[in-house]
Amino acid sequence: MTTSTQTDTHTPRPSTEVSMPAAAGDQARRPRSDERLTELGEGLRRATGGRYGPVRDLARATVPAEVMVRDPSLSVPEARAWTNTSLRRLVEHGMAGSGFPVAQGGLDDVGRSCVDFEMTAHGDLSVTVKSGVHFGLYGGAVTALGTPWHHETFLPPNLSMDQVGCYAMTEYGHGSDVASLETTHTYDPATDEIVVHSPTPSSTKTYIGAAAEDAHIAAVYGQLVVDGTSHGVHVVLVPVRDADGTPVPGVTLGDNGAKGGLAGVDNGTITFDQVRVPRAHLLDRFGGIDEQGRYVSDIEGDSKRFFTMLGTLVRGRICVAAGAGTASRKALSIATRYALRRRQFSAPGYQGDVVLMDYLAHQRKLLPAIATGYAHTFAVNEVVERLQELHEMPVKDQEAQRELETRAAGLKAVVTRFGNDTLQMCREACGGAGYLAENGLTVLRGDADVFATFEGDNTVLLQLVAKGLLSGYKEMWGDLDMRGMVQFAARSFGGQFVEATAARPLVERLRATAARGSEDDKLLDRGWHLAMFADRERHVLETLATRMRRRAGDEDAFAAFNSHQDHLLMAARTHMDRVVLEAFVAGIDACEDPEVRDLLERLCTLYALSSIDADSGWFQAHNRMSAGRAKAVLAQVNQLCSELRPHALELVEGMGIPEAWLNSSMLEDETAARWTPGSATA
Amino acid sequence: MTTSTQTDTHTPRPSTEVSMPAAAGDQARRPRSDERLTELGEGLRRATGGRYGPVRDLARATVPAEVMVRDPSLSVPEARAWTNTSLRRLVEHGMAGSGFPVAQGGLDDVGRSCVDFEMTAHGDLSVTVKSGVHFGLYGGAVTALGTPWHHETFLPPNLSMDQVGCYAMTEYGHGSDVASLETTHTYDPATDEIVVHSPTPSSTKTYIGAAAEDAHIAAVYGQLVVDGTSHGVHVVLVPVRDADGTPVPGVTLGDNGAKGGLAGVDNGTITFDQVRVPRAHLLDRFGGIDEQGRYVSDIEGDSKRFFTMLGTLVRGRICVAAGAGTASRKALSIATRYALRRRQFSAPGYQGDVVLMDYLAHQRKLLPAIATGYAHTFAVNEVVERLQELHEMPVKDQEAQRELETRAAGLKAVVTRFGNDTLQMCREACGGAGYLAENGLTVLRGDADVFATFEGDNTVLLQLVAKGLLSGYKEMWGDLDMRGMVQFAARSFGGQFVEATAARPLVERLRATAARGSEDDKLLDRGWHLAMFADRERHVLETLATRMRRRAGDEDAFAAFNSHQDHLLMAARTHMDRVVLEAFVAGIDACEDPEVRDLLERLCTLYALSSIDADSGWFQAHNRMSAGRAKAVLAQVNQLCSELRPHALELVEGMGIPEAWLNSSMLEDETAARWTPGSATA
Repeated sequence: MTTSTQTDTHTPRPSTEVSMPAAAGDQARRPRSDERLTELGEGLRRATGGRYGPVRDLARATVPAEVMVRDPSLSVPEARAWTNTSLRRLVEHGMAGSGFPVAQGGLDDVGRSCVDFEMTAHGDLSVTVKSGVHFGLYGGAVTALGTPWHHETFLPPNLSMDQVGCYAMTEYGHGSDVASLETTHTYDPATDEIVVHSPTPSSTKTYIGAAAEDAHIAAVYGQLVVDGTSHGVHVVLVPVRDADGTPVPGVTLGDNGAKGGLAGVDNGTITFDQVRVPRAHLLDRFGGIDEQGRYVSDIEGDSKRFFTMLGTLVRGRICVAAGAGTASRKALSIATRYALRRRQFSAPGYQGDVVLMDYLAHQRKLLPAIATGYAHTFAVNEVVERLQELHEMPVKDQEAQRELETRAAGLKAVVTRFGNDTLQMCREACGGAGYLAENGLTVLRGDADVFATFEGDNTVLLQLVAKGLLSGYKEMWGDLDMRGMVQFAARSFGGQFVEATAARPLVERLRATAARGSEDDKLLDRGWHLAMFADRERHVLETLATRMRRRAGDEDAFAAFNSHQDHLLMAARTHMDRVVLEAFVAGIDACEDPEVRDLLERLCTLYALSSIDADSGWFQAHNRMSAGRAKAVLAQVNQLCSELRPHALELVEGMGIPEAWLNSSMLEDETAARWTPGSATA
Repeated sequence: MTTSTQTDTHTPRPSTEVSMPAAAGDQARRPRSDERLTELGEGLRRATGGRYGPVRDLARATVPAEVMVRDPSLSVPEARAWTNTSLRRLVEHGMAGSGFPVAQGGLDDVGRSCVDFEMTAHGDLSVTVKSGVHFGLYGGAVTALGTPWHHETFLPPNLSMDQVGCYAMTEYGHGSDVASLETTHTYDPATDEIVVHSPTPSSTKTYIGAAAEDAHIAAVYGQLVVDGTSHGVHVVLVPVRDADGTPVPGVTLGDNGAKGGLAGVDNGTITFDQVRVPRAHLLDRFGGIDEQGRYVSDIEGDSKRFFTMLGTLVRGRICVAAGAGTASRKALSIATRYALRRRQFSAPGYQGDVVLMDYLAHQRKLLPAIATGYAHTFAVNEVVERLQELHEMPVKDQEAQRELETRAAGLKAVVTRFGNDTLQMCREACGGAGYLAENGLTVLRGDADVFATFEGDNTVLLQLVAKGLLSGYKEMWGDLDMRGMVQFAARSFGGQFVEATAARPLVERLRATAARGSEDDKLLDRGWHLAMFADRERHVLETLATRMRRRAGDEDAFAAFNSHQDHLLMAARTHMDRVVLEAFVAGIDACEDPEVRDLLERLCTLYALSSIDADSGWFQAHNRMSAGRAKAVLAQVNQLCSELRPHALELVEGMGIPEAWLNSSMLEDETAARWTPGSATA
């Protein structure tokens, strides 16, 4: 069915280098299963592994499929119970707590905690999200916004899962606009307590994962009021249920009921009626209340403090990007493996019915998406590793931190958008079989859907990116501070902001070479691709700044903002396109295997040309591409599809989802032949 | 929240003109509910109603919401039971059997039967699909492929639902490629019976609606073998369950289990082990077995007969387009009404937080989609009415029939593609609220998803359209007769085929005027839009034919076909874009209310310019549009969005889904204020 070859020899990758958080027992380190990969497939996995490749390999080798995949026919109560059981088992396998301080049994490795999240996303996304809420958002808030006392008090029961945490940020009235949350945290000096209260119906917390059934304690976002003065949004830890599950007096808990997916996550509502907690429950690393009952903070200005605190959201956004990227790769793995088996219609001169993967139309659906999947993998790896690098710096680099926040926001928006489109495309590419839950695509699509919304609505995040670009990352604004944005752009914007990344010299060198190449060579020239992406970004951003400057004095600041909102979003998207392409280029540069490298180069070209083709109208309208070149780009996309077609299997193997985790009945025959559970190799 | 006005006076539309099938009792005619619409909203409904407007009005006025909307938290068994109950109630309301012969209690109105289907799709799509399978596909096969004896024998128990029918076409091995189905219908002259058999595992029928639980009888597609000779695919009626639900001996029934949606439809598998039925059970209108056991048919050639029989699929495809169009309009109604209520972020000079609908980015998501929704409504109305016109002709017009089949196939593909994209967009536009099942979007999206697959995979259908265009509708080929296609195109293609429609003179007149207009006026000139669409179609089709002709002699016919498969699909898409635009133009022409007409004109311009903008790369690469014009088109799209913004409510009212049928909790306050159940007005 394919021309690819399989290797009979399999070299297990080193797992001894990988440390495990304290919660993971020794037995978890032994690989339980083995996949036989083609040589190229294995090489692609290695090339896309990055710094945390061994962590991924270990998870693939040790976590049994039954922990990762859920029977799609479970009812909501059954799915919730299965999710909790599975989550505890993943903890036993070391896939939690990596980001916690070493003193509390963690590895102090926030990058690795993103990879743990990504690896759970290879299986069931309800487990992933439940894990993300409990360890990542709740545990992460305690870790990042709390002091050592908070760590010692709240992290051990979090890691052991004796105290299930939830993350109570969103309210009915305000989701994207966090600064306007209505919940109040009012300090009462008489009792040295904080009174947590929901003053209006719209201030009820909603969509809160684990609130409906399981959570014992909530990290509650609200306006901190001390001595009658509000100091902006702060986080207070509030018990919501006793150990036996009874709601705490003053706390009303609701169930959001059935959703578009994530059946295993018990999303719910929380309403507080004057609930009192000790002052110490305020996470006060960046701002708190002293013994004398006075508000104190090292950071001057509510707005700056607010954004410093919100900066801790960066990990959540990186995780969502990593999870959505994994979901896309999983769907592409299923659809491509099916397309390599499924035949339909006979053709003259073709042996048997035609394999779906041999149709150009099918190649055009799957292969550019696979190329984008690889591009996103490299881009996500880059931010994950950057997150940990910044974390490891003894002195924090604020500008680098702002840059990372911008990139994480943009990547989350771009990868989840691609994810939803790709999951649907894969479902349709598998026809009726794709619509059966047992084949693994519909549950995945329903689950991943909300990734476009949580941890920041994609449209709002792209605006955040544009604002970061306009300010050169030096300053952050409120999520939609329209007047400020217009004025700032008018004041200070002076051209494209270029980040100092490791790939920068390489990118500059390639671009410089491109300028010297002949016309004919350009289509396949990486320097030309890089120049096209960078030029598009620069032009969009410069013209945006000019337009904003022109309207900076407008009476109606909203109308001024609104008139170029589409331009603003395009600036963000073209910026992210460049960031992703450069991450791909850097990833290839780090690959030493010539065959793997050759395949990655062609994938990268397919990604770049597909993107240029998709924006063909813009490039032509702005005289960046002739009519002839526009046609040649499309022809080259087709050509690359036919060149990559013989490597379809290797490409999906390289995407790293073990076949047994695909949870797709229609692939089972092949799965049985190529995956032997229990055959330990180490 | 909006600038629209509401009328306090409500004029009920005439319902007395509308006949009801015999199954509907008199009480069903009385309107039970009333919506108060704005004047423009009501005018838009009237303008989009077409010939069957009164049928739609009657359904909206008489069918209670509880029949239409399902509690999204029902389990699969509960949903299946609810669906059956609801379906029976819809029959009481006259929404079934319109297409049956008058002698069997129908109205002999196949156009109206599509509208009945469309109206059920305003509610729950499981009911719609179950109705479509039982009445439309099974009942439709009996009606179209059977003789009066079949009608008399099988239609009355179908209409009364005493004998539940299913439509057993698709097999595991073959879905799109119907000609290659493996099931055999072998005539046994010894007993004068037909032996129905599944000779291989891949010949098991699958995804068959109603097979898992309810069906008593199946319309089974299989190869008819008489005296050792196969005569191609024919349909035989085969009982699969006794009245008490026990499977018939030789019939094995399975359950497809959980799906991506349509929880209320019991899709399943059927395997036949030498099951015998009387010879009379062969639906033999186009080919049968005579008393002497000889195969007889008025149609010479298996292929021609096959396509004549498959031609009866046309109604199913029109119904799916109508259903998907309705699902899109419903999602757009929910998302737009939510966008008119939901506020997020404050802005200088704006009273309160900004209403979502006031953001340009949100307008760009919803308003062009609403414009496309209107375009599709007119295009669907046109094929529905054409279907009935052709049905009413005393002498059948084969070429017109082929043309209708082509258009139905293309419209199904285009409308369902738009539907899936739009439903997802609407879900995301409603943020977290959109992800809760109670708000009406996620179940709808899951249900409508498979519309892209059933009644013909969209990619396969677009190929069918392209082939129809290449042959000028004179001839039909196998779904993917690649060599034939290449040769035919080389032989006979001579340019664009233009259908003779009622709108043709108008379209020609507008195009001619466009040629005389000045450059500046072109953007808003309907003639220019029509010319751009027609020119794109013509060029794509002509260059396709040229490329095919050039490779007609190729040794490798598959490679020749494959090399331009993307071009072929583009030919189909650009053809459908023109057909849809012309239907919109004809729809406006038929509207007499100047205010409504003005709104429709602007919607039509938004549809046309959005489409031109989406293909901006093509138009520029082919010198159909300058760089300056390309930029002006985009600016005009934004301008139209801001002009249409004040009419957002009227536009969704005009799309015709009663608020109580939206099944969206987040809109309930508004619903309660604007919808009074039980207030009969007639």
